Amino acid sequence: MTEQIKVFLNEDEMPRQWYNIQADLPEPMPPPLGKDGNPIGPDDLAPVFPMNLIEQEVSTERWIDIPDEVLQILFQWRPSPLYRARRLEQALDTPARIYYKNEGVSPPGSHKPNTAIAQAYYNREAGIKRLTTETGAGQWGSALAMSCQLMGIDCKVYMVRVSFDQKPFRKMMMRTWGAECVASPSDQTEIGRKVLAETPDTPGSLGIAISEAIEDAVTSENTRYSLGSVLNHVMMHQTIIGLEAKKQLEKIGVEPDVVIGCAGGGSNFAGLAFPFVNDKINGKDLRVLAVEPAACPTLTRAPYAYDSGDVAMMTPLLPMHSLGHTFVPPPIHAGGLRYHGMAPLVSHVLQLGLIEAAAIHQVECYESAVLWARTEGFIPAPETAHATAAMVREARQAREEGKEKVILLNWSGHGLMDLVAYEKYFDGELSDHDLPEEVLARSLASMDGLPVPAGV
Amino acid sequence: MTEQIKVFLNEDEMPRQWYNIQADLPEPMPPPLGKDGNPIGPDDLAPVFPMNLIEQEVSTERWIDIPDEVLQILFQWRPSPLYRARRLEQALDTPARIYYKNEGVSPPGSHKPNTAIAQAYYNREAGIKRLTTETGAGQWGSALAMSCQLMGIDCKVYMVRVSFDQKPFRKMMMRTWGAECVASPSDQTEIGRKVLAETPDTPGSLGIAISEAIEDAVTSENTRYSLGSVLNHVMMHQTIIGLEAKKQLEKIGVEPDVVIGCAGGGSNFAGLAFPFVNDKINGKDLRVLAVEPAACPTLTRAPYAYDSGDVAMMTPLLPMHSLGHTFVPPPIHAGGLRYHGMAPLVSHVLQLGLIEAAAIHQVECYESAVLWARTEGFIPAPETAHATAAMVREARQAREEGKEKVILLNWSGHGLMDLVAYEKYFDGELSDHDLPEEVLARSLASMDGLPVPAGV
Repeated sequence: MTEQIKVFLNEDEMPRQWYNIQADLPEPMPPPLGKDGNPIGPDDLAPVFPMNLIEQEVSTERWIDIPDEVLQILFQWRPSPLYRARRLEQALDTPARIYYKNEGVSPPGSHKPNTAIAQAYYNREAGIKRLTTETGAGQWGSALAMSCQLMGIDCKVYMVRVSFDQKPFRKMMMRTWGAECVASPSDQTEIGRKVLAETPDTPGSLGIAISEAIEDAVTSENTRYSLGSVLNHVMMHQTIIGLEAKKQLEKIGVEPDVVIGCAGGGSNFAGLAFPFVNDKINGKDLRVLAVEPAACPTLTRAPYAYDSGDVAMMTPLLPMHSLGHTFVPPPIHAGGLRYHGMAPLVSHVLQLGLIEAAAIHQVECYESAVLWARTEGFIPAPETAHATAAMVREARQAREEGKEKVILLNWSGHGLMDLVAYEKYFDGELSDHDLPEEVLARSLASMDGLPVPAGV
Repeated sequence: MTEQIKVFLNEDEMPRQWYNIQADLPEPMPPPLGKDGNPIGPDDLAPVFPMNLIEQEVSTERWIDIPDEVLQILFQWRPSPLYRARRLEQALDTPARIYYKNEGVSPPGSHKPNTAIAQAYYNREAGIKRLTTETGAGQWGSALAMSCQLMGIDCKVYMVRVSFDQKPFRKMMMRTWGAECVASPSDQTEIGRKVLAETPDTPGSLGIAISEAIEDAVTSENTRYSLGSVLNHVMMHQTIIGLEAKKQLEKIGVEPDVVIGCAGGGSNFAGLAFPFVNDKINGKDLRVLAVEPAACPTLTRAPYAYDSGDVAMMTPLLPMHSLGHTFVPPPIHAGGLRYHGMAPLVSHVLQLGLIEAAAIHQVECYESAVLWARTEGFIPAPETAHATAAMVREARQAREEGKEKVILLNWSGHGLMDLVAYEKYFDGELSDHDLPEEVLARSLASMDGLPVPAGV
């Protein structure tokens, strides 16, 4: 064997605690606000989330124990392998060394179960019998479906209608794992019926689906709502990725110069990045890069503001980079990145200058994804392709500069359910979607009159 | 943590040699025969396969080194994890302990690349620039597409037309890995044109596709043919599964009482089973069970005979259990198990009483697959569901008998590309397919007049 290309961790080396970056922020985050503009407290969230997760949401403890039962299930596919992408390096003729965490090894094929398992567990521990959620393309819905099944509680998923009709496979996956999945807007909630009455032919949106799932949760017995990204506790559950990666890199004596993740709501990015952002807070010299679609440029073109997480403004106001809660993203294939806002924690560390952001168009993403599949074997998800595209840029720059830098990226999921997008790429049917200034301005106007975070 | 449920191997523990069961057979296999009824020699196979693989095909060396470059690529997903299926055991309330090898971790999602990588390597080493093959549902075609891409040679796949039209995703996977994939029968071979002229609306068959791929190989420059199952060297390349499993079980001090794999052409079954069959040859007390579809009962209802591997009788005559080379299997969803023959080595060890066989109907298979997905998380491929169904039978029997037996099975691939079959199962649209005696008799008649293996 010429060289080790994969680093395992044994079970006894698996992290036993999540990392909570709220303990280490140089400045605390602004609080979420209620509709009256006043900070909300734990009790305000109680109809929507169980108290044990609300406590995690506001905790400033640095380390929080992962329950044994959650670890037992995570161990089904974790620790996820860390790879060196040797053949890719050769194909790019770069002096950079490229490492990646493969989160595609979970049963639904992405990082999403890292928090889905935890959320299903805490809800069940709190006596909750049923979770509701929304899903776009279905990565999150399928992860929660599996997790609820394994934890023995019920699951109902409101799936954006256009995906429900056009992408049936994730829906079948949810059914296989015992969840109920309906197209949103549905006739099963008040908000759904209202939308259907006004626009019977609507393709639906994540914003509408969130509203339906929350309404269902607060009006049904023993039911709570579960969100797959954006919230603080979700970011924290995902840090197991970065904590494993640090241990794996230590094993081979490697330190990254650049850490890369794609960012939609922010969870897979934060999961890999936050333990490294902690290094940066402690004085280490490295870059941390969040990559988003140029068609949905939350971090690179949207203001840091208070905005709602859904169209119907049922969520509290969160301090975050937001394109405006009425923003309708162009139809790019990376469904998991089509969200108007960004996790408050990710937004905050960008504000603090601890991370940087880049926006990339989708054709460049697929170019890099095909190169990846043809050298590393694994086929990236459209979302993950944004991280691979940024990695290719970094590796090419390293070649031009003759620098031997170490790149670490989060390979957040496989694209086996997204092959139609590859087919379109090969047929030349994919195009890039610019976001015209006037469209952005209209969407941003939906935030007019909302409070502004202090210091902005 | 209550108990370890997954056993890793480190890179330095990965097997460095394949196991060749031909070295240990109590009786040698009958030789393959040419059309004249005489044994064929290596030179007869040279237009179809490269000499280095032909040498492996006839070798009786017990251990054959795995080339470093093959190991490097296999290490991308190997050693595959060995799991204990604790939640499944609980759901079945069985005293049996259930262990499984997860071969779904490879990029195309099955065990197939274990031999595809090796075959692409040996062909390239022999100066071959291009491989042809056939594929049914696409598991094998996609594995060879990836392997040829990684080894830097071209790949052309003849895909059975009905699958090409109805199951487009594996075709897209092949394209992503740079292979050319055409529907068979095609207008690109003489045999294809002949079939199209006679039956323009034919759905195609594996037999026709094999004939086209071989014709292409023997008539094109620097081109050879590659087969994903049946042949001796294919079985040998797959033994890395069983060799890893033995090391993993040794680590935790466990010995299996029953070893289970599904069997179509025989390769995933042989891959897990043959190292354990060796134990049995050496006097150890264990059962080894091959599971096939009741709709295509090669091992349980077909004679041991000399038959051809394809409809057009372009292959040599192989000593094997065969339903007759004209057999057209019912439309069960486990496309990988719809083959009229069985690997000569698997057939031979059944003849010698070293293994046993069972045939199971598909609805029972999906029942077990859904139970599996809902306890272990991973969704089994329809082929793999035959192994899980047999496992459930064994576990239930253990409960009835109060026996603490250890079951080991080959979880040969995931079903993420096969969710339509699950949907049909849930909708009650799947039915079992019996094989009427008269249909079987007609098909067996196609072997009339062919030689019979000695001693039969």
